[in-house]
Amino acid sequence: MAAAFSCPVFFPSTFSYNGNRYHGRIKIKINATSSTKVKTLNEIAGAGKGSSSLATSTEINHLSQEQIRQRIPTKKQLVDPYRQGLIIERGVGYRQTVVVRSYEVGPYKTATLESLLNLFQETALNHVWMSGLLSNGFGATHGMVRNNLIWVVSRMQVQVDHYPIWGEVLEIDTWVGASGKNGMRRDWLIRSQATGITYARATSTWVMMNEKTRRLSKMPEEVRDEISPWFVDKRAINEDVPEKIVKLDDNARYVNSDLKPKRSDLDMNHHVNNVKYVRWMLETIPDKFLESHQLSGIVLEYRRECGSSDRVQSLCQPDEDETLTNGVEQSLLKNMVLTPRIMEGNGYLGPLDVKSYGYTHLLQIKGDSKNEEIVRGRTRWRKTLSTLPYSS
Amino acid sequence: MAAAFSCPVFFPSTFSYNGNRYHGRIKIKINATSSTKVKTLNEIAGAGKGSSSLATSTEINHLSQEQIRQRIPTKKQLVDPYRQGLIIERGVGYRQTVVVRSYEVGPYKTATLESLLNLFQETALNHVWMSGLLSNGFGATHGMVRNNLIWVVSRMQVQVDHYPIWGEVLEIDTWVGASGKNGMRRDWLIRSQATGITYARATSTWVMMNEKTRRLSKMPEEVRDEISPWFVDKRAINEDVPEKIVKLDDNARYVNSDLKPKRSDLDMNHHVNNVKYVRWMLETIPDKFLESHQLSGIVLEYRRECGSSDRVQSLCQPDEDETLTNGVEQSLLKNMVLTPRIMEGNGYLGPLDVKSYGYTHLLQIKGDSKNEEIVRGRTRWRKTLSTLPYSS
Repeated sequence: MAAAFSCPVFFPSTFSYNGNRYHGRIKIKINATSSTKVKTLNEIAGAGKGSSSLATSTEINHLSQEQIRQRIPTKKQLVDPYRQGLIIERGVGYRQTVVVRSYEVGPYKTATLESLLNLFQETALNHVWMSGLLSNGFGATHGMVRNNLIWVVSRMQVQVDHYPIWGEVLEIDTWVGASGKNGMRRDWLIRSQATGITYARATSTWVMMNEKTRRLSKMPEEVRDEISPWFVDKRAINEDVPEKIVKLDDNARYVNSDLKPKRSDLDMNHHVNNVKYVRWMLETIPDKFLESHQLSGIVLEYRRECGSSDRVQSLCQPDEDETLTNGVEQSLLKNMVLTPRIMEGNGYLGPLDVKSYGYTHLLQIKGDSKNEEIVRGRTRWRKTLSTLPYSS
Repeated sequence: MAAAFSCPVFFPSTFSYNGNRYHGRIKIKINATSSTKVKTLNEIAGAGKGSSSLATSTEINHLSQEQIRQRIPTKKQLVDPYRQGLIIERGVGYRQTVVVRSYEVGPYKTATLESLLNLFQETALNHVWMSGLLSNGFGATHGMVRNNLIWVVSRMQVQVDHYPIWGEVLEIDTWVGASGKNGMRRDWLIRSQATGITYARATSTWVMMNEKTRRLSKMPEEVRDEISPWFVDKRAINEDVPEKIVKLDDNARYVNSDLKPKRSDLDMNHHVNNVKYVRWMLETIPDKFLESHQLSGIVLEYRRECGSSDRVQSLCQPDEDETLTNGVEQSLLKNMVLTPRIMEGNGYLGPLDVKSYGYTHLLQIKGDSKNEEIVRGRTRWRKTLSTLPYSS
């Protein structure tokens, strides 16, 4: 049901459930030494909530003020006029209409990848909001809160065929499904409201973590009872065998070191938001490449959370055949006739027109004795017709 | 009518109109040596637009595709269901309902100042959008485009009494008025939709610049005819004599040097967005202060635009009586009884409960021979009851 993008999978020293069996995407680290304990919103807010038997009248007043201001539904809602959201797909999917805002686009008026990731997070949380299952956390259900569980994302994949432009009206559909025995899949589709053309697709995988022990958890029966009625067997992206992302080492061609999380990078979970990770990844790619290419796809495998005091290193490596395909593509472009179809993408080539280029990415925390992986990534790029600086 | 937050006042070597007479807030720099010419969106997009007599059919197709996707109104609209906006105040003001999104809040679920500034920009542009006056730029009217004029902001002031929280429904009102003979004032009010309580107020001053000559311009009669029917004589903030912001020098107590604009900081105008300026300013204040204080007000005086290749220095200086008032306030707090009114602010003290603290700010471009001012700022802060890291 839920989403807490800001809280990537964190690997404590032991596990309460065998992650190896989980979808094959979670890497088990035995005897990992880190055991960072970061206070959660609920822990910090705990004393002032009604759950405290010592709550004073002013504290209860505070709580009710927040409830009045936030108005989280306690029952399933079919329509939310303020969020412009509605429940679809025989009562289990969610659709939200959004307008691309002026500050969500970069140069050339196209929405940034960061904006799309933000909208994925927003619609996922609003889906849970509408379900009546949302508790006072970052997407956790009532059953999850009773079991001290929070959502952590383990994998995220996005494909962008067309970037929305400033002022454009979009429809974003999102739904959830089972992923293995203890996980959940969440998918998204972004469409143009005016033309119905699909602009972007995304899929993600989520597991539950005990926020006190920091261990991954099985899905408790009461939580399964809450969320499984919402599961749909439908996929935004068809991918039988997920692409394996190799781990880069110090020989990677491009390295940005000493990246430091800033105050403005922290979110409700007091962690660096995963959107910031993507920014760090992309900023490591040389400007020259970014000026002539547009991101068409990204896969992220989350390994560990990143705190505000960590120093992060971003590595990336272009695929080896880049120079070769670049030459091939240049000659292809010279003989290409511009068609209306190509121009549809706001000046960009469509996804099928040219071969794409690949980069492999790694974000890690530089330690004294060893490095800790935060996230591995793969990005795919297509060449732009004109020189469009910073088009992602 | 309009708003182009990203394009602060730029001072070329000469002026086409005497800025000294303009509201007393624009500083004239005679014989300034800088004359950076940055291409605007319109210039870059020019060749592909219908205005080109050599436009090919594919280019015209491209244009119409963009028009279909964007749907900028050519006549005044009273309601926009997608933007949740409507024209109010006898046909000249604009009101938009927004929900505070999950990625617009920081730790502790409160909206960040950056998010509020983004919403000000968004509602200003949507006001112009609804007016039917919006041309294909960043808030410029048809008459402005015919005269090669763009909006530049010269001053911005924001007061925040309460920070909205995640999921809260807000009503944002915005309207414009005359400012001197050639300028425009734009004001905003943010209210809670549930309680009607005013959370924040803002006012700003705008002038026009010729995008080709980079000179400030008088308001042409045809532009005055477009926008003056929308002017209202009403103010969000009552301030007879604007506070003068002193210019800091190298003796400022806190200095961040070598700040480098990143790709993700650039916006539709290919300039560093002014919201980024605020981030640079606030990040120069020591963490210790930020952890126990919440921003209650900010004033910004824009002097010069900042390009992607500039290296920026951020200076700030606390008011001299900080230690003294800090002591006074501590004793005040010890004897204070918590009232529901105090708790209304989500745990923060209300604006009238304690004396505020002040900081003076300066962002400048470090040059070899001299420095160029980008923006001067003043921030006001109130102490928070509990230790709330990064609450702004």
